[in-house]
Amino acid sequence: MNFYLNWLRNLLPEKSKNGGLDLKRFLEQINEPNDIKKINKENLPELAEQIRKFLIKNVGKTGGHLASNLGAVEVTMALHLCMNFPQDKLIFDVGHQSYTHKILTGRRKEFDTLRNYQGISGFPKEEESSCDAFNTGHSSTSVSVALGYAKARQIQHQNYKVAAVIGDGALTGGMSFEALNNAGRHKGNMVIVLNDNNMSISENVGGMASYLGKVRTGETYAEFKDNVENALRKLPKLGDKIADKLKQTKDSIKGLVVPGMLFEEMGITYIGPIDGHDLELLVKAFHTAFAAKTPVLVHVVTKKGKGYRHAEENSPKFHGIEPFDPKTGEILNPINYLTYTECFSNKIVELAKKDSKIVTVTAAMPSGTGLSAFAKEFPDRICDVGIAEEHAVTFAAGMAAAGLKPVVAVYSTFLQRAYDQIIHDVCLTGKHVVFAVDRAGIVGKDGSTHQGVYDLSYLTHIPGLTVMAPGSDRELNHMLEMALSLNEPVAIRYPRGRVLEELVNEVYDDYSYEDIKKGKGYIIHKGNERQDKKVAICYIGSLSNKAYELYKLLMSEGIDGTVVNLRFAAPLDTHLLDQLIEDNDVIVTLEDNIESGGVGEAIAAYIGKKNCKNTSCIIGAISNEYIEHGDRELLLDLYGLDMKRICKKVLECI
Amino acid sequence: MNFYLNWLRNLLPEKSKNGGLDLKRFLEQINEPNDIKKINKENLPELAEQIRKFLIKNVGKTGGHLASNLGAVEVTMALHLCMNFPQDKLIFDVGHQSYTHKILTGRRKEFDTLRNYQGISGFPKEEESSCDAFNTGHSSTSVSVALGYAKARQIQHQNYKVAAVIGDGALTGGMSFEALNNAGRHKGNMVIVLNDNNMSISENVGGMASYLGKVRTGETYAEFKDNVENALRKLPKLGDKIADKLKQTKDSIKGLVVPGMLFEEMGITYIGPIDGHDLELLVKAFHTAFAAKTPVLVHVVTKKGKGYRHAEENSPKFHGIEPFDPKTGEILNPINYLTYTECFSNKIVELAKKDSKIVTVTAAMPSGTGLSAFAKEFPDRICDVGIAEEHAVTFAAGMAAAGLKPVVAVYSTFLQRAYDQIIHDVCLTGKHVVFAVDRAGIVGKDGSTHQGVYDLSYLTHIPGLTVMAPGSDRELNHMLEMALSLNEPVAIRYPRGRVLEELVNEVYDDYSYEDIKKGKGYIIHKGNERQDKKVAICYIGSLSNKAYELYKLLMSEGIDGTVVNLRFAAPLDTHLLDQLIEDNDVIVTLEDNIESGGVGEAIAAYIGKKNCKNTSCIIGAISNEYIEHGDRELLLDLYGLDMKRICKKVLECI
Repeated sequence: MNFYLNWLRNLLPEKSKNGGLDLKRFLEQINEPNDIKKINKENLPELAEQIRKFLIKNVGKTGGHLASNLGAVEVTMALHLCMNFPQDKLIFDVGHQSYTHKILTGRRKEFDTLRNYQGISGFPKEEESSCDAFNTGHSSTSVSVALGYAKARQIQHQNYKVAAVIGDGALTGGMSFEALNNAGRHKGNMVIVLNDNNMSISENVGGMASYLGKVRTGETYAEFKDNVENALRKLPKLGDKIADKLKQTKDSIKGLVVPGMLFEEMGITYIGPIDGHDLELLVKAFHTAFAAKTPVLVHVVTKKGKGYRHAEENSPKFHGIEPFDPKTGEILNPINYLTYTECFSNKIVELAKKDSKIVTVTAAMPSGTGLSAFAKEFPDRICDVGIAEEHAVTFAAGMAAAGLKPVVAVYSTFLQRAYDQIIHDVCLTGKHVVFAVDRAGIVGKDGSTHQGVYDLSYLTHIPGLTVMAPGSDRELNHMLEMALSLNEPVAIRYPRGRVLEELVNEVYDDYSYEDIKKGKGYIIHKGNERQDKKVAICYIGSLSNKAYELYKLLMSEGIDGTVVNLRFAAPLDTHLLDQLIEDNDVIVTLEDNIESGGVGEAIAAYIGKKNCKNTSCIIGAISNEYIEHGDRELLLDLYGLDMKRICKKVLECI
Repeated sequence: MNFYLNWLRNLLPEKSKNGGLDLKRFLEQINEPNDIKKINKENLPELAEQIRKFLIKNVGKTGGHLASNLGAVEVTMALHLCMNFPQDKLIFDVGHQSYTHKILTGRRKEFDTLRNYQGISGFPKEEESSCDAFNTGHSSTSVSVALGYAKARQIQHQNYKVAAVIGDGALTGGMSFEALNNAGRHKGNMVIVLNDNNMSISENVGGMASYLGKVRTGETYAEFKDNVENALRKLPKLGDKIADKLKQTKDSIKGLVVPGMLFEEMGITYIGPIDGHDLELLVKAFHTAFAAKTPVLVHVVTKKGKGYRHAEENSPKFHGIEPFDPKTGEILNPINYLTYTECFSNKIVELAKKDSKIVTVTAAMPSGTGLSAFAKEFPDRICDVGIAEEHAVTFAAGMAAAGLKPVVAVYSTFLQRAYDQIIHDVCLTGKHVVFAVDRAGIVGKDGSTHQGVYDLSYLTHIPGLTVMAPGSDRELNHMLEMALSLNEPVAIRYPRGRVLEELVNEVYDDYSYEDIKKGKGYIIHKGNERQDKKVAICYIGSLSNKAYELYKLLMSEGIDGTVVNLRFAAPLDTHLLDQLIEDNDVIVTLEDNIESGGVGEAIAAYIGKKNCKNTSCIIGAISNEYIEHGDRELLLDLYGLDMKRICKKVLECI
């Protein structure tokens, strides 16, 4: 079936070490890095089985990434059989498929803490193990990192192995192309394992995906053959004879010229496609690859969710999953409340029904960003560009230039990739692109690489960009409607999870909803004007519950604070601020963004620029550091948004 | 010689319009868009000649991009012969090669204002002409924009042509790969003109470059043929016969399977390679391409600097050039002062001689960033990764993880591309990568897409990143030395042009240089402590001359201000600030960055957070808007750094 298969089977001597042990619970023998090499070769398939069971059971308890990990068990085992840790460097692209690597480097016993605060991370972490060569989380970085290691090894005359494991989804990110383009001229070995499961989180898209699909199924060869055959048959004399002969030479020519030509043409030696669940074959292929004096790409074909029926059948569901019942695959505590994402999902469909110019763009996350319903309703008006945030934004700018109203739905942390495009292609000429920035603020268990705590800092300083944050579903609906009516660039940022604000706001006795006007915040509760010391609490977006908590704490100290919903992070509502500065001794700002460059700092700066005023500003924001994984509420409290502490600061100040 | 050449020559009917005119000064007949179609076909080569002469003469006067424009004359003319403006959409990647397009759309008479304030831009500008479909400036955006137009055209059932012109240099940017990956599945026409001159600014690098090189010279076919031939000769029976026959079938098979296979495999129809200076052939190829129902890539091979000996022989010099003498090619007013770039260039070589762990990374700009000397001295320790800033940063992080000390030398405006990588791959784990951020602040004539006025805003909020800005050569030297000793991420930002500060600072009678300490600014002149109203002027980096100007203006009003060199934008020197707040009524900050998110705002916020103080802050910074092209000093004055105005503000405040 495959040229390389036979070629590899015959090429290499047997290399797997056989420690002579014959243990039943092989998984329990894995306690230190490289312990896998002690397991008898014939028992390795059973170890793979035990790892799968372990993963299903544990992720069922803690939640986490499952489908991709089940798919990568044999690939990871094979790499561990060919490499030595920690001296060799293995970089997992994205990194959520590194669970087997964590088990094989001695972290099995910590899996009950997976993704919990101070427990092990769901991603590779240098600070967790010396066997994790580089932290990953975002997509398409691994080949760059691996090439960095390979180049440094060369410069320093060292000798260790370097490998990157990258999915076919991550391969659509332009950065990995930049890296492959450079890897192609590296004079030395490095191994790129292309873990091809034909999926990003959802099905993979684009020319590269269809190319890999053709390689997997042998179609590139078939096309090539047909083309050549047809050309030959048109030739006079020997044409037909040659064509017939060519049919018999299939395997040789196929092996020589066809699969992976795209990579070969970039200067990278290609081996594959290989069954990514055939451990023996994988080991042989990796040994061959590491022995080369050039960069080698090993194309392995895996099945996402492999070995667990529920995950095989619905891998997007088991991509990142909450705790579930391993037997039924059912989630234990399904969400029974309205999320911001769902609210966006409903509203964008409603608006698009009325306005045919509305189109949407997602970078491989139609489900996560709430665009699945839109895709069902308007399949021709949604573009899933794959993991390609830079292209997504500029592509949207192009559509806006042509008169459409594109909405780019994207996670806060991934929009970081398109900072330049937001300035250069969207805002510089005021293109009407709407950014629906999901997972803003603390995202929780995905941890430091994924926290959406920078967007207010990287968006609010961009000239011409309006940045708003809704609390309630009503606000999100109205903001989206307004954004689509503005004819200028707008970003709306909202967090993961439950919509809270409307409920919270209604507890103030004088609360009434005010319509959204560009750049205008509003006072949702006016404090007692006759009190001696006056405090205003200005919050943005989903921090209404924190604002209410602080309001109550101050009330218990006899202070009836004014509560302000800022709504807009940019432009600032300077008119409202002037009034607040005039009326209050202390202004407290609350935001789930890092302090530096956030809305609190902008307000504090505004106060700082006012002449000779006696109003102080207390900023409640995420502290300027990298925030680990853990429960969202816990992290908010730990990293700067503990209202008791802020209340204390207010009392000290007045 | 070329399969497509003959094929195209025979395929198409004659399409060029012949207006029957026989004018000598054809260029003068071009006053409106589409006027080129009135020129007699046989006179078009003469028009090309006249355009070249015009470009050489005018760029000689104004300065600008020359070599790339000379290379793109026929390609642009051919596109104009096949398209109608403004209804059709032509997007120039990077855009500095759009001069001929500007001439052909009726802007010839404005070329004496090229790149001057309120004159025509050196890049496509929507606000300048409806024939400029999209503003460009940064690399690798054009295919995304074109695909946006093509998709919007489809959704809106419109009918216009869309084409992108992208260089082989810009093709190494990952964004263009993301776009090609998506273009490959677009169901409709769009034309991508790959303008292949084997150059970025300097020689192009990487796997793609060597691939294109092979396509140009026919080597891919040769390799393919050798492989197949060798395989066949090993076969029993008919092998040799087939191999011999294959030799005779060269052209047919070559045309069918070989050139551009990389693009074909992505799903994009490939035509080429074509002589990019053969106008007739180009027109035919573009007609064919526009007639297709799919995305088509037309690979044209051009010569940078074509038709002007000096530029052909030294195209990097004539990439972007100051006014020069067309006869000799000599620059009229060569730089005779020390620039920041040159200072960096000298120091990095000096430091690298002492420390073998220092390596450098550039994204296709070894000369512009001052790394040419380093490349000469340490050819194995510099990596030119091509136009690929994202990869550059993460690759550097990988080298840092492996124990090297990478210095990434990059322009401020291009580092925007790697905002995410700076956070995710460098700073999150505190990798020791040093960013030498050149062209920070106003860059002048390249205009709005290139202004380096955001870096303080996008860098200073990143946790763990130290950001400094030197004024003098001495400071730059010491900062670089310090950055390389810190073992953490550091950015040093400095502007284009002459090093000034040391000279300026020495005019203060109490000036003495203070050694650089992390996070510490220093007082270079202490104002009169006994005066009634006290003012502190805090500047960063190269604004020492502005600070001195303000100091003198205040002196003429009887105020002897304190002058502070901040040196660090992050972390802030809060100790010094506390002292300044204590001692002064007004603190003025000066920076050549936009106000929002800059160091002035951080200082104002610090003041705003202080309890009940009577110190005001006046921020001198670039105003929050997009800054057009023009003379650097003029733009500083116009956009927020006019010291007379700031002096007035200070006087109003005290």
